[in-house]
Amino acid sequence: MAAELTAHELIARHRPTLDQALEAIRTRAYWSPHPEHPKACGENGSLDLAAGKAAFDALLGTRLDLGQPGTDGWVDGEISPYGIELGVSYPHADLDVLLPAMKAGMRAWRDAGAEVRAVVCLEILKRISNRTHEFAHAVMHTSGQAFMMAFQAGGPHAQDRGLEAVAYAYVEQVRTPDTAEWTKPQGKRDPLALTKQFIPVPRGIGLVIGCNTFPTWNGYPGLFASLATGNAVLVKPHPRAVLPLALTVQVAREVLAEAGFDPNLVALAAERPGEGIAKALATRPEIRIIDYTGSTEFGDWLEANARQAQVYTEKAGVNTVLVESTDNYKGMLSNLAFSLSLYSGQMCTTPQNLLIPREGITTDQGPKSYDEVVADLAKAVDGLLGDDARANALLGAIVNPDVKARLEAAAGLGEVALASREITNPEFPGAVVRTPVIVKLDGSKPDAEAAYLSECFGPVSFAVAVDSAGDALELLRRTIREKGAMTVGAYTTSPEVEDGVREVCLEEAAQLSLNLTGGVYVNQTAAFSDFHGSGGNPAANAALCDGAFVANRFRVVEVRREA
Amino acid sequence: MAAELTAHELIARHRPTLDQALEAIRTRAYWSPHPEHPKACGENGSLDLAAGKAAFDALLGTRLDLGQPGTDGWVDGEISPYGIELGVSYPHADLDVLLPAMKAGMRAWRDAGAEVRAVVCLEILKRISNRTHEFAHAVMHTSGQAFMMAFQAGGPHAQDRGLEAVAYAYVEQVRTPDTAEWTKPQGKRDPLALTKQFIPVPRGIGLVIGCNTFPTWNGYPGLFASLATGNAVLVKPHPRAVLPLALTVQVAREVLAEAGFDPNLVALAAERPGEGIAKALATRPEIRIIDYTGSTEFGDWLEANARQAQVYTEKAGVNTVLVESTDNYKGMLSNLAFSLSLYSGQMCTTPQNLLIPREGITTDQGPKSYDEVVADLAKAVDGLLGDDARANALLGAIVNPDVKARLEAAAGLGEVALASREITNPEFPGAVVRTPVIVKLDGSKPDAEAAYLSECFGPVSFAVAVDSAGDALELLRRTIREKGAMTVGAYTTSPEVEDGVREVCLEEAAQLSLNLTGGVYVNQTAAFSDFHGSGGNPAANAALCDGAFVANRFRVVEVRREA
Repeated sequence: MAAELTAHELIARHRPTLDQALEAIRTRAYWSPHPEHPKACGENGSLDLAAGKAAFDALLGTRLDLGQPGTDGWVDGEISPYGIELGVSYPHADLDVLLPAMKAGMRAWRDAGAEVRAVVCLEILKRISNRTHEFAHAVMHTSGQAFMMAFQAGGPHAQDRGLEAVAYAYVEQVRTPDTAEWTKPQGKRDPLALTKQFIPVPRGIGLVIGCNTFPTWNGYPGLFASLATGNAVLVKPHPRAVLPLALTVQVAREVLAEAGFDPNLVALAAERPGEGIAKALATRPEIRIIDYTGSTEFGDWLEANARQAQVYTEKAGVNTVLVESTDNYKGMLSNLAFSLSLYSGQMCTTPQNLLIPREGITTDQGPKSYDEVVADLAKAVDGLLGDDARANALLGAIVNPDVKARLEAAAGLGEVALASREITNPEFPGAVVRTPVIVKLDGSKPDAEAAYLSECFGPVSFAVAVDSAGDALELLRRTIREKGAMTVGAYTTSPEVEDGVREVCLEEAAQLSLNLTGGVYVNQTAAFSDFHGSGGNPAANAALCDGAFVANRFRVVEVRREA
Repeated sequence: MAAELTAHELIARHRPTLDQALEAIRTRAYWSPHPEHPKACGENGSLDLAAGKAAFDALLGTRLDLGQPGTDGWVDGEISPYGIELGVSYPHADLDVLLPAMKAGMRAWRDAGAEVRAVVCLEILKRISNRTHEFAHAVMHTSGQAFMMAFQAGGPHAQDRGLEAVAYAYVEQVRTPDTAEWTKPQGKRDPLALTKQFIPVPRGIGLVIGCNTFPTWNGYPGLFASLATGNAVLVKPHPRAVLPLALTVQVAREVLAEAGFDPNLVALAAERPGEGIAKALATRPEIRIIDYTGSTEFGDWLEANARQAQVYTEKAGVNTVLVESTDNYKGMLSNLAFSLSLYSGQMCTTPQNLLIPREGITTDQGPKSYDEVVADLAKAVDGLLGDDARANALLGAIVNPDVKARLEAAAGLGEVALASREITNPEFPGAVVRTPVIVKLDGSKPDAEAAYLSECFGPVSFAVAVDSAGDALELLRRTIREKGAMTVGAYTTSPEVEDGVREVCLEEAAQLSLNLTGGVYVNQTAAFSDFHGSGGNPAANAALCDGAFVANRFRVVEVRREA
């Protein structure tokens, strides 16, 4: 078919952005092409706040017909953590029809080459970026994130992670040239001479298994890494967070078709309530790559059972912050208070265990006992969330009843230093909004271990009293090794303790933030610069984003002949 | 300890070679720093032919004491395929002592950084290269390769593959900078500013499980890829091919010690006859990377069971050459005859199935019937091996009784077009030397399928009569998909058939050689230019060498703090 968007046009439009992304992943300096301030949207074809809200409202109660082959029914049922029913219905797929249809366009997609695939991906991201305001509502009403966070993390930051994956995928494919002339001297005889072609070839269909809390941020890296390396991509969203990924699939299909490719290269696999299609899907022979974010249990199952596929998992972990000493006590407390509160701690990167010497810590405001540190942190959280409007804007809503149940149970695990409060959201009375709980635990008591060595996903932190910094390091090491960690934080003014925590993190492969007291938080990572996870401890078998995340999504086939 | 070899000295000595290797893997033009002509050795500290032979002879009957911790006995028992007993004994390791000792030096090795690790690896390779003549005998008398092949494939070509792995490992580690300054504008407020460190960290101990036929060529990529990325490496050689890898370990330990590192970063795990330590070793928690070359059965076992490790396997496959038409009949026959004869077909890359249309092929010498093509190929092999001295120099010796048994059984599978002959090796009367057998099979007969769809490792080829080029392509596709293939060859003057075979190879991820009629053979690949295997079909889950082969042997840990 004649493409509305030619390769030439797409390259002219997006090559400069791709080049900037390639430079950013090399220098790891700050960069983003995606506006992250709500007011920055609304120009050059992008939706402003009102238009985005209107677009989202217009979706409610409608059928999102993606025009996919093998659609054998419609599924719906999303209820926002803010209490409203979305009422959007999505195609349900007959996989025996859909999967073969997805493979049909792969040859042309492969033959298009790495650069064209990259700029098609960038066009998809650009159109998503233009609709960030609409996506923000979709992310907010599926994840329970507050609007500003849904806007930023679900919008530009997710788009950044997608673009980062495209950049890694592109550079990995072009590090081997398309052709080479190989001439080997043979002394007095004629040299041996071969002409060689090197063709990146896809593995098959990539499966993206989305999560409830960050459907786009955690979904885009795998989606774009697989697509940019020539694979087709089937997106199976979390049943409670379909809309953001369904819209993503819709945009991808539109762009692919306009660029002259088969739109079925990207498709959605929504499921009926309780259908549980992930296991069956993940072991289909057509599925050769899987990107998964979710529970350790299912992640481990995928790694063990989806043997026909390359499996990239982000699972659970137990994140630790070591509080040993600081020269900015106030900054430390406010930084930690924000980290514990943001999105009600429902981030895989939120600190859970705060390890504090039971004899107290030294600070710029004099020595502080363990009890004082915990009380001051509780006060800092209280102060941060004292105003209900600000609390709502920071906390968002509890994403599901399991999180609420864990939060309620946590108060029984030890002495409560900060009790969780219920907050009313005047705009969405159905939202379950809770402030974080901080529970004191004695690290030397064996019965406390069961609490602090399990992931307690949600707004729950444990202030764990430890005998010494050395004990804290050993507990940190053990926690990372046995449970995994997406993040580690440490506050210390002691070079020895800093060396110690650094060495533990290097040996156990965990990402470390030191002495954060300002506007950057341990639970946030920036695409193009920070790695999300390390791929080297049990929390995740891959990092976002590095060479290993993309290099095995395609293979290089060589065709050689005599010159 | 004070290093005899400083980092500065090693960088000065080897950085230019590393840079050339980096350029070679980028352009994939011909390059090698390792002399591949026997007469080119003997200068600049390298052993010449006589000195290499003397060094090898001096090893026979001795104890190779590597000075390894945990040595609890000595093992020997290698018998050359040429009939002589090597009588070299090697340390047997108590793994509970050796493995912890290997980890002791990892911190310093990690902290040395990617460049120092690379140049230490290059020093190891340089010293091995200086002893190529000695290694040639060690490879010859363990693999059964003829001397010239043992010299080249076991010497410079193996060293090239090791250096290639070092180059890939180096570039992968330095694509992320050591440090970055990240400054994010905040409108009118002060920018957010972080200082970030990025440190490549190893996974743990890499295990190299060597093979009988190419101990160095197949062993070096994994050994050097793991070592260059900061891991310790334990080498478990095939019980019949210990010496070449034991010498390699000895050199590595010497260089590490001289450079001020712990020699226990590289160690040998030789085993008692029948001890079968590979399974127990491969599932030890200390082992985090495994490189394996050998049977499909054990490779599959490793992939399924060594879940704590990154597993890179090269297993068995069924290699196909499609013979459809040619404009150089004579060149095709002599090229194929050489490929079938080299090292008695005991290469994972040797063609097994020759698919030939039953109605015959077109050639520059007129049409040739299926029978004529097979008879002419048999004649070409006969001619190539007509002289016993030349035959011995090309065939080498049968590596083990299993290969001999398969060769003898093959004659019963169909009509024998070329019978295997026994050849005497006057220098080594104990050598089992056999010429290849070619057996005719009818591709349309279901009972023939069991033969041509199984790997028959050794000097056995099947001339499979197919109904058409289209049928050949379908059989080729099925063979690669079900059995895997390290190589595919094709002879055709038809653009349609060429497109067809190319498409099958791209879709099934197999490396294709087209119309080879000169001095390059389908079973040979050159480091820095050709990929060995694709990692995309059942014959191997990795290619030598690409980004995916190195990128997951280390992880990057980030340490960030406010600027």
